[in-house]
Amino acid sequence: MKTFFSEDHRAHFPQAELHGGQFVTPFERPSRIEHVLTRLKERGFAAPIAPDPADRAVVDALHAPDYLDFLETAWAEWKAEGFEGEIIAASFPARRMQTARPPRNIDGKVGYYALAAETAITEGTWAAAWSSMASAQAAQRAVAAGDRAAFALCRPPGHHAASDMYGGYCFLNNAAAVAEMFRRDGAAKVAVLDVDFHHGNGTQDIFYDRGDVFFASLHGAPEDAFPYFLGFADETGTGAGDGATANYPMAPGTGYGPWSEALDDALSRIRAFGAEALVLSLGVDTFKDDPISFFKLDSGDFLDMGARVARAGLPTVICMEGGYAIEAVGINTVNVLEGFNNA
Amino acid sequence: MKTFFSEDHRAHFPQAELHGGQFVTPFERPSRIEHVLTRLKERGFAAPIAPDPADRAVVDALHAPDYLDFLETAWAEWKAEGFEGEIIAASFPARRMQTARPPRNIDGKVGYYALAAETAITEGTWAAAWSSMASAQAAQRAVAAGDRAAFALCRPPGHHAASDMYGGYCFLNNAAAVAEMFRRDGAAKVAVLDVDFHHGNGTQDIFYDRGDVFFASLHGAPEDAFPYFLGFADETGTGAGDGATANYPMAPGTGYGPWSEALDDALSRIRAFGAEALVLSLGVDTFKDDPISFFKLDSGDFLDMGARVARAGLPTVICMEGGYAIEAVGINTVNVLEGFNNA
Ligand SMILES: [Zn+2]
Ligand SMILES: [Zn+2]
Repeated sequence: MKTFFSEDHRAHFPQAELHGGQFVTPFERPSRIEHVLTRLKERGFAAPIAPDPADRAVVDALHAPDYLDFLETAWAEWKAEGFEGEIIAASFPARRMQTARPPRNIDGKVGYYALAAETAITEGTWAAAWSSMASAQAAQRAVAAGDRAAFALCRPPGHHAASDMYGGYCFLNNAAAVAEMFRRDGAAKVAVLDVDFHHGNGTQDIFYDRGDVFFASLHGAPEDAFPYFLGFADETGTGAGDGATANYPMAPGTGYGPWSEALDDALSRIRAFGAEALVLSLGVDTFKDDPISFFKLDSGDFLDMGARVARAGLPTVICMEGGYAIEAVGINTVNVLEGFNNA
Repeated sequence: MKTFFSEDHRAHFPQAELHGGQFVTPFERPSRIEHVLTRLKERGFAAPIAPDPADRAVVDALHAPDYLDFLETAWAEWKAEGFEGEIIAASFPARRMQTARPPRNIDGKVGYYALAAETAITEGTWAAAWSSMASAQAAQRAVAAGDRAAFALCRPPGHHAASDMYGGYCFLNNAAAVAEMFRRDGAAKVAVLDVDFHHGNGTQDIFYDRGDVFFASLHGAPEDAFPYFLGFADETGTGAGDGATANYPMAPGTGYGPWSEALDDALSRIRAFGAEALVLSLGVDTFKDDPISFFKLDSGDFLDMGARVARAGLPTVICMEGGYAIEAVGINTVNVLEGFNNA
């Protein structure tokens, strides 16, 4: 299985994440990736391949033009306003307020395009997000060209990024782009399976009204876990997408037994849907020692997870999402890949 | 004119306000009030009167029960979760997310009940907000008992607090409570006139569908100024409240000429509405040197402002809202009161 990876992810490393009323070093940090690279090498995977540039047309199909403009220009506007910190959202279009009138003022604009304030934008954020998108797209091209599967070592992650909102460490939705590319390449139906601990609200949002992309997510129940406001079991799609969204919210303390039952159910739903290609949004923050999550998977469970996903028998692109138990991120991620390869 | 004031406001003084991506000492701080007290004394106003406790029934009529529970219990829940900082909102029910399902998790709950992340909640916030509400209610009782006007030296302010959201330094809507009390005392129609630099989104929200309370606000245009997502000229009320909301958004650099024309228009709308009592949401952040605003009023303009409001000839309760040019807050506030008295 080829791995696609860009060193440009380093351009994004905010100093500050708003957590528990304080600024902390972001849980989503470059060293997460180092541990994956080390384990890939150690376990005999081929050296990662630097991706070709991303195709902008795919991104334009998923994200709103004003949102992309915002991401590209936010840093310059923020600095022009005289703000000294990194970009952090502070004011939001809340209940019963105007949700379709982006402000002119950059402070207001930031709040308009954010779904959370924990995620800072820095000078290098756009470049890093764009390189992450390039890795995802390159992995899709490898699979479209005949590889059974490919791994996009994306950073920053993407699954929380909606068509017009960033947050949860995500800016551009890499997994959604891969699904869209499979469709453009001729697959009638595609599935995105999101096994990150957190609900893939962005991916769900992007495909919610589409009948050609099935979205399934296994995650911490929104009553208890970020992003809190999406990922309920009764969200099943709308319009042409009615029935093409499946959410498996699970309670604090959930272990691999019930988790893998949900996985099997999601995979059987994907089979019944008739997907011709699969995108795996792979977060390993389901691990028992993850500092910001509450599932109880052991490292060995990730081998089994990979095998179950492989047995779906679909051309598969695996996109890296979250995972914050820094050293274990490498072991658990590579376990999924190895489990997949050995199935 | 009597002044009502509680020392308990000191219980609320967060260390941190999120501003420009950094934590700064909150612009809304206790010393604002000291300067008003000093000027009141210096200019011969009677000593402030400590208010009786607030009537909870009035507050219950304006704010959602779950929101009030949240404000009272948030600090204990936040500390029980192990967070070390003050309470700052980080995750929001954004566009196309669930806006009517409050999370169980305190971090999620905070985001659910917040409209902005600049405003921290501390251990003493509820007590301070409750004492501010008490001052407002005591001022109303003085006017209901026959005084021509009364001044509630409220802190924290209230006009950004919606029925179920805090933010913009506000938690309980003092001005709305005064309007509600006038109604309960028998006034068929009441008006709230909000001259704070920022749109009184909370007050508008509370009365938007009511035909018995007219709400007029003069403020920085939402495209350019907090709260960014409410206060547009085309927001005019709904249902029974259709036509009972009047917004006067104004551009950066607006001086007293155009500003006072808007004031006269608002006052004539209030007269036409048939209001029998008036609540003035008095922020003095329209001052030219205010650090977070962009109007250009001079100190002398506040004397004229008070006189124009007095000439409406209505029983009037003046509630303190914003104003952050700390030393000038005292001068400008007392200028409004003196202008009113001398009209
Ligand atoms: Zn995650
Ligand atoms: Zn203000």
